[in-house]
Amino acid sequence: MLTDLESAMNCIVEVYHKYSLVKGNYHSIYRDDLKKLLQTECPKFLEEKDADTWFKELDINEDDALNFREFLSLVIKVGLAAHEDIHK
Amino acid sequence: MLTDLESAMNCIVEVYHKYSLVKGNYHSIYRDDLKKLLQTECPKFLEEKDADTWFKELDINEDDALNFREFLSLVIKVGLAAHEDIHK
Repeated sequence: MLTDLESAMNCIVEVYHKYSLVKGNYHSIYRDDLKKLLQTECPKFLEEKDADTWFKELDINEDDALNFREFLSLVIKVGLAAHEDIHK
Repeated sequence: MLTDLESAMNCIVEVYHKYSLVKGNYHSIYRDDLKKLLQTECPKFLEEKDADTWFKELDINEDDALNFREFLSLVIKVGLAAHEDIHK
């Protein structure tokens, strides 16, 4: 039986794999995968910056793919935005 | 209508508030709140280190309370553990 926090994190892992599995590499979200992810999962974020700018920002090690850790920095931004929205 | 990622993040924000609201301060999880949170939400993490050690590690600014950003570092660790578990 998962706790609320574990379920939420599993859901985040599933979102990651939904896009990382498009090209069969379990641990890579490529530039166009990220574009689809942003359009589908957090469209508000594309109002700020385009998908390419996001990709450059998130791809810390500059290997042209986002691993799970790099993806988590996006998740944190979504989280901080969700937290701010709640207190508006 | 929320996306999967937004729902997951809202769930994380709710978990934070569930414990931060115990003492009425919306943005502070205190030492004993964290202990309850760990026991309820991620008991596995207490096998590694006790609640006090976790608190010291997470309370970056040493103000004896965890704000939402500090709480997110715990969430990331839960996330990385969930991701590793899936690939076991």
